[in-house]
Amino acid sequence: MKYIKNSFKGLKPYHSSLITDGIILNANESPYNPPKVIIEEFKKEVEKIEFNRYPDMDERELCHSIAKRFNVNDNNVTIGVGSDELLDCVFRAVIDNGDKVVSFSPSFSMYKVFTELVGGEFVGVYGDDFKFNVDDMISSIKNNNPKLVLICLPNNPTGGFLSEKDVRRIIETTSGLVLLDLAYIDFSGYDYTNIALEYDNVISFRTFSKAMSLPSIRCGYAISRDFNIDMINSIKAPYSVTTMSQIMARIANDHFNLYKVQIDLIISERERLYNNLLNLGFKVYPSKANFIFVIMNDKYFDILLENKIYIRKFKENTYRITVGSQKENDTLIEVLKCAKQN
Amino acid sequence: MKYIKNSFKGLKPYHSSLITDGIILNANESPYNPPKVIIEEFKKEVEKIEFNRYPDMDERELCHSIAKRFNVNDNNVTIGVGSDELLDCVFRAVIDNGDKVVSFSPSFSMYKVFTELVGGEFVGVYGDDFKFNVDDMISSIKNNNPKLVLICLPNNPTGGFLSEKDVRRIIETTSGLVLLDLAYIDFSGYDYTNIALEYDNVISFRTFSKAMSLPSIRCGYAISRDFNIDMINSIKAPYSVTTMSQIMARIANDHFNLYKVQIDLIISERERLYNNLLNLGFKVYPSKANFIFVIMNDKYFDILLENKIYIRKFKENTYRITVGSQKENDTLIEVLKCAKQN
Repeated sequence: MKYIKNSFKGLKPYHSSLITDGIILNANESPYNPPKVIIEEFKKEVEKIEFNRYPDMDERELCHSIAKRFNVNDNNVTIGVGSDELLDCVFRAVIDNGDKVVSFSPSFSMYKVFTELVGGEFVGVYGDDFKFNVDDMISSIKNNNPKLVLICLPNNPTGGFLSEKDVRRIIETTSGLVLLDLAYIDFSGYDYTNIALEYDNVISFRTFSKAMSLPSIRCGYAISRDFNIDMINSIKAPYSVTTMSQIMARIANDHFNLYKVQIDLIISERERLYNNLLNLGFKVYPSKANFIFVIMNDKYFDILLENKIYIRKFKENTYRITVGSQKENDTLIEVLKCAKQN
Repeated sequence: MKYIKNSFKGLKPYHSSLITDGIILNANESPYNPPKVIIEEFKKEVEKIEFNRYPDMDERELCHSIAKRFNVNDNNVTIGVGSDELLDCVFRAVIDNGDKVVSFSPSFSMYKVFTELVGGEFVGVYGDDFKFNVDDMISSIKNNNPKLVLICLPNNPTGGFLSEKDVRRIIETTSGLVLLDLAYIDFSGYDYTNIALEYDNVISFRTFSKAMSLPSIRCGYAISRDFNIDMINSIKAPYSVTTMSQIMARIANDHFNLYKVQIDLIISERERLYNNLLNLGFKVYPSKANFIFVIMNDKYFDILLENKIYIRKFKENTYRITVGSQKENDTLIEVLKCAKQN
């Protein structure tokens, strides 16, 4: 990569293998397609699309649909290619060389990547045994005076969660912007989205990729006070969200209630999987998301792989297992049970 | 926007009005939907999509289809959310604070935006009467030693073009990277894409948004030597191109020949529109693209607007008119003719 700038010399192109066969529990995807009604409505809309026209760059219909759901104004919402694009926009807008970004660690790995891409300095706040330590977070904010504070709730990959009171404590400690990444919040039984409207310094990020079963359309959104939304929109690439994604997301959002059955099923499967993994003697962490963080010997990972069951490895003996369908979870448990007995 | 960094304080969120009624000749869109066969094949594929899975982040099938068309290897191709995303990746990868970027001017306005977003310095090379001046470009390269040289062929918004010999002269003068933006090349009767494979320092950018009639899916691609493709892939956000866009683009690319009729029609309409505008006494520039650059009094713009005909204004008395369908062009000519007579 002879033309890349010096500070990026260490970067490597990231590839991931495309798995099309087996049980895929490594990407926190829902095991279910969206409800049929949504797909059918979408197919009817496809007939009417003028493919030869650019998408609506302001995603008006989708913003309006989301604003209605959260009872905010249309100008409190903006749409991106996954919430990733919007997070990236905030990093680009706010972080100058050497500015600090504070996040609990481990958390979503892209926070560090986004920080480094804009020359910021990433500070991770590690808790004992992978738990959130709010006091340490508050000390770190006081010591580092960060421009951005990242909080992923429930946390990816640990599944950890915070009370609303703790979230507010953090927000009220910092003069920087707090980014609430709520990608998995629908699995928690709570919703912190609208906290963002109560403060100047909070942006909530949500996505269609998890509980809404639509990672294929790459669509996320941010909710905040209008000047923060304006800031994102002044950095965001025009026309980044495709016409079909806007339409599909709008239909899904309008039918949000139809997802309840799927979400409840995933939550109850999560609890069942948790108990089974616990009974098998693995170290398991309580989770409010659609995945479970597990400490287990690497040999079990290899055995799962041999059985075409794909889970996510973080480091030695440290894994994240996405909650699959009942049948998929049964197979996973069965394979681990057999492995334990041998 | 209280949290935005100082260097971005002047930025404003960019909005564009959504026009749904009238004759839209302001965005260089094709007046035609893609050929029916393509839409029908796509609809069959929708039935099989697992919407609950992330897209293939390496866009393997689409890269392979494109590589086949241009007779290059799969690792000479990468896909983006429009060629814009890929251009942006190169700017982010290459430009450090104060680095120079040289481009003919006027050209695609995003080059300057991308430069400023990463703290680079943009140098425009202006020719007399909106024409390319290759000698001045070469002097500017020698004087400025730019990290990036942008060449848009045919040029947006002027429609200007360069011989292959001139393109090579520029490439061989600079030690920086040359970005050949070929968004409109299919309307020129030439193809410079594969020049990128002959040099270390050239990347060609193409898009499905223009001749392929698919701006709605936001899909572009870059072709270059593998290390330049690796560089883009190491910056590019993972999973940015949706599953549906990958599928639609792959089908369209496989059926590239079906577009010939549409493209030929647009080219012949361009020539007819050019002659008509010339005969009406406007100053018109020869174009190799699907638009025409025109100097005309602002009052004609107002009259067109009153008739719901939308063209693109650049500055006082300076416009770009996209070539529409035969009927749309007829209406435009008729309105201008009437206006001239009054």
